[in-house]
Amino acid sequence: MGNIQEILIAQGIKARQAARVLATASTTVKNVALLNMAEQLETGSQDILKANGADLELGREQGLSAALLERLTLTDSRIRDMAQGLRDIAALPDPVGETIDSSRRPNGLDISRVRTPIGVIGIIYESRPNVTADAAALCLKSGNAILLRGGEEALNSNRVIARIISAAATGAGIPEGAIQLVDSEDREAAVFMMKMHQYLDVLIPRGGKGLKTAVLENAVVPVIMTGMGNCHVYVDEFADLAQASPIVMNAKVQRPSVCNAAETLLVHHAVAARFLPAMIGELQAAGVEIRGCPTTQQLVPGIKAASEDDWAEEYLDLVLAVKVVGSLDEAVDHINQYGTGHSEAIISDNYTNVRRFLREVDAAAVYANASTRFTDGGVFGLGAEMGISTQKLHARGPMGLKELTTCKYIIQGDGQVR
Amino acid sequence: MGNIQEILIAQGIKARQAARVLATASTTVKNVALLNMAEQLETGSQDILKANGADLELGREQGLSAALLERLTLTDSRIRDMAQGLRDIAALPDPVGETIDSSRRPNGLDISRVRTPIGVIGIIYESRPNVTADAAALCLKSGNAILLRGGEEALNSNRVIARIISAAATGAGIPEGAIQLVDSEDREAAVFMMKMHQYLDVLIPRGGKGLKTAVLENAVVPVIMTGMGNCHVYVDEFADLAQASPIVMNAKVQRPSVCNAAETLLVHHAVAARFLPAMIGELQAAGVEIRGCPTTQQLVPGIKAASEDDWAEEYLDLVLAVKVVGSLDEAVDHINQYGTGHSEAIISDNYTNVRRFLREVDAAAVYANASTRFTDGGVFGLGAEMGISTQKLHARGPMGLKELTTCKYIIQGDGQVR
Repeated sequence: MGNIQEILIAQGIKARQAARVLATASTTVKNVALLNMAEQLETGSQDILKANGADLELGREQGLSAALLERLTLTDSRIRDMAQGLRDIAALPDPVGETIDSSRRPNGLDISRVRTPIGVIGIIYESRPNVTADAAALCLKSGNAILLRGGEEALNSNRVIARIISAAATGAGIPEGAIQLVDSEDREAAVFMMKMHQYLDVLIPRGGKGLKTAVLENAVVPVIMTGMGNCHVYVDEFADLAQASPIVMNAKVQRPSVCNAAETLLVHHAVAARFLPAMIGELQAAGVEIRGCPTTQQLVPGIKAASEDDWAEEYLDLVLAVKVVGSLDEAVDHINQYGTGHSEAIISDNYTNVRRFLREVDAAAVYANASTRFTDGGVFGLGAEMGISTQKLHARGPMGLKELTTCKYIIQGDGQVR
Repeated sequence: MGNIQEILIAQGIKARQAARVLATASTTVKNVALLNMAEQLETGSQDILKANGADLELGREQGLSAALLERLTLTDSRIRDMAQGLRDIAALPDPVGETIDSSRRPNGLDISRVRTPIGVIGIIYESRPNVTADAAALCLKSGNAILLRGGEEALNSNRVIARIISAAATGAGIPEGAIQLVDSEDREAAVFMMKMHQYLDVLIPRGGKGLKTAVLENAVVPVIMTGMGNCHVYVDEFADLAQASPIVMNAKVQRPSVCNAAETLLVHHAVAARFLPAMIGELQAAGVEIRGCPTTQQLVPGIKAASEDDWAEEYLDLVLAVKVVGSLDEAVDHINQYGTGHSEAIISDNYTNVRRFLREVDAAAVYANASTRFTDGGVFGLGAEMGISTQKLHARGPMGLKELTTCKYIIQGDGQVR
């Protein structure tokens, strides 16, 4: 076995070759492959569970948190869900080949813009082994080859899943190399992937701050950063407070570990005294730790002070920072300064304030009178998602099949010259 | 005056502040500003010409080529064209605020995707001082602040143009800092811009290989690479040869210095003996130097051998590499290996070959039976262009106003929770 860089380059070359063929593969071939992948995952469930058991045992030995072990765990039912996910993707329309727009020019040229695959997509992700199947399926359906780099804690599980789906795809006529796992626990592998611009057309890191920093420092491949969510709920002075409470509870408590959960509550000072004591009581009763600004601390005795760091923190846990603001402007400024551009909500019944918030807050998803928890490819009608982009180029918000494509101008003439 | 990095950071902060205001500026305010910029450019033409004279004198002293001096030269008529360009951009529809798509979800949420400005755009460009006005106008119309880094050889001209248009914009109600020039001849300024990810949302380098290499090595800011054009014309075995000759002549000779000019001619061996001698004769008569593969050299005695480097070279000059290929596959492989993904043409009357070429060649613009020279924002109906993207993410091909925007999901509810 050579070193990891040589292996990665060899994988890159194979991926490029596969991508060329995959780009013109028919929808039927791709769908048959996806259905075969689903079936083989179910057939191979015992192998997958065995490998997953090994990962879990290693994880326990290494002292992984209960939350992480939970995300790592596969069961028969989770494998069936994974297989169903692939069947769902097979049922989605193929984005490749769609004519986005077209025109006949005065000189008789017919110019159309047609959706095409991007080429080779690299993804770097953590913990949940079902991502291996999901991401591979989304890339396959959109005509892209994929290089998968999962978390080292899930390597045994990912190995078996990747082997099964890759063989199932090849067996159904997809070129070898279309689905490849980076089989290494070495952190250097991820860093080297970030530099493989000759082999990867785009890199999609799914993860938190550490991964983002590594990408900023190392990436030469164009990147679509996903899944950083420091989300806010702003309760305006004109909020319907009876509506505000369930939204705040939902945004914070329903599933605190995901990127569209709220991390900071902003409350207009005109309603703070009426709203905050009961709201904080309800949150605390649900096990939420509150970190408050000085005004919050005055209104609700005995809660911890929020530090500057708290405003920037993505807790992904039952912790909520609370700040009383003097105006809509202060709320918008706070969000634009500390937010990660993911999902931001205003609770208000004032037309002008809602309109201003929706316009002026700079984020992938801005909400009026609903929970931030809805930012999701399924909920938004995309069918499935590759992650939630928090950057502005190429894709913003949930990324579905279309976001895994690019386009090409096709110009048909009869001998035209300029 | 502090060092260039401090100045750039101060400019970045100003640009960010301006971008926030500009993002919600009305179309009327932006258009009035553009018309005022056009008028002030004409009013200030004597100042511009004086500064341009200084640049030209310096350029001559430093031995710039005649071609470069020509691109650098401004005249009264070129300044009028520049002003007209701004008026044309004022007349284009404003892309900001357009609803791209929308749906009402089963739970009653109204979800729409709305076009918004990107934020702050950095551009790095060379020689032609009219780009300063063009690029600033496109960014202004699309609601973005811009940081302009022109070529050092045009610094005097760019300084005056940027001062005039920036003052004209501010005078019409655009926030200060929306249009800023990086006033430095220092190469370090460009390299530092590539790393200013806190202040720039995207960097658009317009230039050749050297700039591309610097960007690959240094850029942390997301980049849209433009203007690299190693373009091919492939004359198929089923080409109408009478149609092929004028297309080849046009693609190579009409304006060899631009990125959509052809650099390599590929000819199917079945028609090479009939086509190449006369074609090469015509090209040579127009002053084109030919560099041929061994078969080409056999067919047309006395021409220079093409080296491996020639296949990858973007001459931007009256030089053409010529290669005889054995099949459509070989032509497609050659193009996908050596091309820069810009503009590629097949000349053929065979349905299957045309269809395969248009599908399998991986480029921003693929042509059947027309000259590559048409790849241009104006010709494609975009009205004006910021450059021609040769990458796949975000924008591919000519970039108009829409390509200078991103989107945002707006979700309107009535208290929905998950």
